[in-house]
Amino acid sequence: MINISLMGAGRIGKMHAEIISAHPDVNLQYVYDINKDNALQVAKQNNAEIVNSPEEAIMSDKIDAILIASATPTHTQFITMGAKSGKAVFCEKPIDLDIHKVNECMKEINEINIPLQIGFNRRFDNSHAKVQQARLKKEIGELEMLIITSRDPEPPGLEYLNAAGGFFRDTTIHDFDLSRFILGDDPIIQVTAFGENLFDENAKKADDFDTAMFILKSREGVLIHINNSRRAVYGYDQRVEAFGSKGMIISNNQTITSVESYTNKITSSKEPILHFFIERYTQAYKDQFNHFIECIKNNIKPSVTFEDGRNALIIANAAYESHKQKKTIEITYE
Amino acid sequence: MINISLMGAGRIGKMHAEIISAHPDVNLQYVYDINKDNALQVAKQNNAEIVNSPEEAIMSDKIDAILIASATPTHTQFITMGAKSGKAVFCEKPIDLDIHKVNECMKEINEINIPLQIGFNRRFDNSHAKVQQARLKKEIGELEMLIITSRDPEPPGLEYLNAAGGFFRDTTIHDFDLSRFILGDDPIIQVTAFGENLFDENAKKADDFDTAMFILKSREGVLIHINNSRRAVYGYDQRVEAFGSKGMIISNNQTITSVESYTNKITSSKEPILHFFIERYTQAYKDQFNHFIECIKNNIKPSVTFEDGRNALIIANAAYESHKQKKTIEITYE
Amino acid sequence: MINISLMGAGRIGKMHAEIISAHPDVNLQYVYDINKDNALQVAKQNNAEIVNSPEEAIMSDKIDAILIASATPTHTQFITMGAKSGKAVFCEKPIDLDIHKVNECMKEINEINIPLQIGFNRRFDNSHAKVQQARLKKEIGELEMLIITSRDPEPPGLEYLNAAGGFFRDTTIHDFDLSRFILGDDPIIQVTAFGENLFDENAKKADDFDTAMFILKSREGVLIHINNSRRAVYGYDQRVEAFGSKGMIISNNQTITSVESYTNKITSSKEPILHFFIERYTQAYKDQFNHFIECIKNNIKPSVTFEDGRNALIIANAAYESHKQKKTIEITYE
Amino acid sequence: MINISLMGAGRIGKMHAEIISAHPDVNLQYVYDINKDNALQVAKQNNAEIVNSPEEAIMSDKIDAILIASATPTHTQFITMGAKSGKAVFCEKPIDLDIHKVNECMKEINEINIPLQIGFNRRFDNSHAKVQQARLKKEIGELEMLIITSRDPEPPGLEYLNAAGGFFRDTTIHDFDLSRFILGDDPIIQVTAFGENLFDENAKKADDFDTAMFILKSREGVLIHINNSRRAVYGYDQRVEAFGSKGMIISNNQTITSVESYTNKITSSKEPILHFFIERYTQAYKDQFNHFIECIKNNIKPSVTFEDGRNALIIANAAYESHKQKKTIEITYE
Repeated sequence: MINISLMGAGRIGKMHAEIISAHPDVNLQYVYDINKDNALQVAKQNNAEIVNSPEEAIMSDKIDAILIASATPTHTQFITMGAKSGKAVFCEKPIDLDIHKVNECMKEINEINIPLQIGFNRRFDNSHAKVQQARLKKEIGELEMLIITSRDPEPPGLEYLNAAGGFFRDTTIHDFDLSRFILGDDPIIQVTAFGENLFDENAKKADDFDTAMFILKSREGVLIHINNSRRAVYGYDQRVEAFGSKGMIISNNQTITSVESYTNKITSSKEPILHFFIERYTQAYKDQFNHFIECIKNNIKPSVTFEDGRNALIIANAAYESHKQKKTIEITYE
Repeated sequence: MINISLMGAGRIGKMHAEIISAHPDVNLQYVYDINKDNALQVAKQNNAEIVNSPEEAIMSDKIDAILIASATPTHTQFITMGAKSGKAVFCEKPIDLDIHKVNECMKEINEINIPLQIGFNRRFDNSHAKVQQARLKKEIGELEMLIITSRDPEPPGLEYLNAAGGFFRDTTIHDFDLSRFILGDDPIIQVTAFGENLFDENAKKADDFDTAMFILKSREGVLIHINNSRRAVYGYDQRVEAFGSKGMIISNNQTITSVESYTNKITSSKEPILHFFIERYTQAYKDQFNHFIECIKNNIKPSVTFEDGRNALIIANAAYESHKQKKTIEITYE
Repeated sequence: MINISLMGAGRIGKMHAEIISAHPDVNLQYVYDINKDNALQVAKQNNAEIVNSPEEAIMSDKIDAILIASATPTHTQFITMGAKSGKAVFCEKPIDLDIHKVNECMKEINEINIPLQIGFNRRFDNSHAKVQQARLKKEIGELEMLIITSRDPEPPGLEYLNAAGGFFRDTTIHDFDLSRFILGDDPIIQVTAFGENLFDENAKKADDFDTAMFILKSREGVLIHINNSRRAVYGYDQRVEAFGSKGMIISNNQTITSVESYTNKITSSKEPILHFFIERYTQAYKDQFNHFIECIKNNIKPSVTFEDGRNALIIANAAYESHKQKKTIEITYE
Repeated sequence: MINISLMGAGRIGKMHAEIISAHPDVNLQYVYDINKDNALQVAKQNNAEIVNSPEEAIMSDKIDAILIASATPTHTQFITMGAKSGKAVFCEKPIDLDIHKVNECMKEINEINIPLQIGFNRRFDNSHAKVQQARLKKEIGELEMLIITSRDPEPPGLEYLNAAGGFFRDTTIHDFDLSRFILGDDPIIQVTAFGENLFDENAKKADDFDTAMFILKSREGVLIHINNSRRAVYGYDQRVEAFGSKGMIISNNQTITSVESYTNKITSSKEPILHFFIERYTQAYKDQFNHFIECIKNNIKPSVTFEDGRNALIIANAAYESHKQKKTIEITYE
């Protein structure tokens, strides 16, 4: 049995608590949240205990691993504390919104050899992973273009927006990582970014975008397009298209059922697509956790590293720079 | 130039007139219709002349071929007249509703060697023909099941129904022929038929069905299902599915455009499917006529023969017998 | 906690054991199988105990419910024993292959009021259930035709075939039940059946079919077509099409991922469809068990009754009669 | 009868000759080509005469309209000559590769009021036009993003590349125009362009790109993405996706037939998509010509104007500037 402390019992923490509880080889031991009621509720539902401080949750001898789903500004502190206590660490994205804090953390844990995984769940989606495999096995020949469409069903509230660190660092960061995942050993070296505020009043108040487009370029010359919106009325639009010298592979949207309808107005109309990330990536969230547990058991390095989290943030920061300067920005990862 | 007389200038005759006129190697010389106004209108639109009797239209020395699109009871008479005058003959389906008249006609023209083609247009549809080719080339291995869905968008009027000879002989006859086309040298030897009157008041008055299902069997044991309706609110539903030992091939419906729509109610909804036979089989009607002209030019036998017309009628008649007797009927083609 | 005995630890029993174990409100207490090794293995994997006789498994005071997944000939005996002990009973289909044993059992348990559910898992498939809902809510107007395609990926072995009771009672029985489910209060009153042995040597040895087609009719005149095969090389083909006065709804096949491929040979080719019933109906199996547990908790009658199991068998028997007599058979359910 | 002179009898001129010949209200009178053999062949096939100079073809009193399908450098000269002779003018895209020549031509013909249409055929494609209509009628609410995928099946030869004026002016110009068409009265004000040479040796020799991506922005803030390739092994990939506040509409690819195949390796694989522009836009080419003829008959201004041709070129030029300067370029149309 692997004993785990859950840091953070909000919406995403709750989801993780259920995944932890359902895993046959894992025990949810402690739940910590700055809001004690949240912690109590999640602990109760999953037969866990609450603790009153991060230190108790992270440094206890009973604990083998920690899962960090707390507010973003706490991430680096908990990662460092976990690593220094020799615990395996799973941390939700982003590592932090401030690259300096990320670099600081990196230095602190640099010498410590523990399983450390960042929560880029989309890498574990079966369909997206097929695209990555197709590139790896050259099923579509040499990759030439990659097109990612990623649109949320509805905009979040103002409070969320104020804490999220901006559209590129909060949302597009997933697509930056997915691009890096599919490109494999061919690094992204350029980004050009366009953000707009077209409809969302809250985004306007938060001085944020609700619509964005990007073009990135890899060292080998692969061109990557990403487009994002905070509101797709037809659901959580998640598509990946890889185009190469020998063909194309598309990871398409998924619907609730396999039903098609025909009336005097519509033909072969499908059911609504899966509403949002919790529905669309249910299995991916489980599979990323399974991977984390397998890494702990076998003492191997998780496939989604601290560096992956850092690099995605570096691209997001460059994207902001591009938007500001209205030009293409070269990316360096030092 | 091949000079053609058109017999019948109603809805379907009009369509044929346009196809004839557009063909570069063919001249529409005469139009005959029992209704002189119809004949005049079609002749005028296509730079042809009208004639006052079938004899003038068919037996004139100027004429190389006749296209029969007149009322069904006139078909055998015109075929015989055309054949005896040495004209190439294209005749719309069905040859006749009465098998005795068909047999009589067969005897009359038996010894005459002219190109004679029956208007089973669906054989010339690219998509359906792909299914036939797949069976022929054993792309799906051995054919085991064939499923034909054939539904009209809306029921015809009472007048049409009273003259049409019944649902099986008017509508299903196309599907019987399509089955024979796909089965090739493996003849249909059995039919079981189910007709219902579920919604159409005119069909009730005409003592006809509006809904029907069939199961047929070939000598090799292939099972064939056909289903028909006089009313599909979403359009002219035309599908063919061939299932075999090595796979399946489906000829699917076709939409007006390649557009898909997404709203908060529907996802990937396609445009309406093509409304009815004139829209769906536009190209097939042209291609069957091209085939007829090629057969005349090269003096070869058309691929859709008098026998094909007769055999489809024999199946339709057996289907009525099956419905009446509530049992499976063995089919003989003598 | 609801304590359950599992009767039968073969392939399907093993699957049920996992579903039982994963349910938060249920405890797998006992496993019984005539083959003790099977029982031991399943018990061990699910932290249950084995017992040496059906009586111990069924009549124990510790037990609240039994799940019967043993060989078909034992079903009625175990149902009766369970019912008489006041246990809730879930029984895999078919109840029995012999209608006399089924009628006998019905009489025995007639007066006993316990939750008793038959394992027609397809009723719990989300997509098929949408079709049933569409019919119920008249979303497609009045139902006029129903078309069920149900094909296994590969034929079973001879041993299975010899015990299965014939293609219609083993396989089509699911489609008969699904038809009844969708038709709701409109009973099936007629069946015409066609069975063929086209490819499977084992089926030939077992004097069984490998290919079949059916047309059924309901009291309201709805025509139903079913087609079955023991071998579809492209996977477990499970489709339901309901056609009505106001439209059509289709429950389509499902693929492993949402990926589409394009090469110089193929376009928009999807991934393989889900291989067989365990993959295709994973969630349906869970949901039918959840329904059973909810019925126990709330002491209500399960939606899939003993009568449903009996009526599907009656249709299957009539189908055999139709095949033998080569005619349509009227069905009575007394 | 409208008498037309065809300028240029190469590949595209030949296609236009056939469209002209098939139109019932139009007569192809003269064919001119600098290569007399080309002219002779096309004239013969379409019952037209050849002439020995552009002047004869354009200025003849017999002539009502000219269709310019000759080499790009001749376009402005022929437009001017036609306009000054009072002839209606249809000119293939681009007007010219040099904006100065285009401006010069514009000044020359500015005061002359004749029907003048530029050959942006894609505007006349039914499916793309549905997208434009959906934007116009606000069926998808306010347009927020537009994504155009446009990929040729195979690269042209070196000779073609050397004369074509570069990838952006030869190919993307269609997509720039299509964007302008869909955006309607909301002008494009910005472009950022990325060109790569990834695979085509001829393109390399011609100092041209084979792969490109673009982001454009309209005055209202609509973001537009275009991606192009000279080689898609699966065929001529032509897709348009418009995303708005109330939904999305996609104009998808089109296949030769409506057939789907299933084997043990692939499922629901469609037929090849239409190979190239002549196959994909057959009807669009006819419909743009019909529009031109209707404009002549009714003396109205064609919907695709000289200005449209000029504006698309201005965007293409700005795209080259963006690529060179590695930054976003503001577009002015003066």
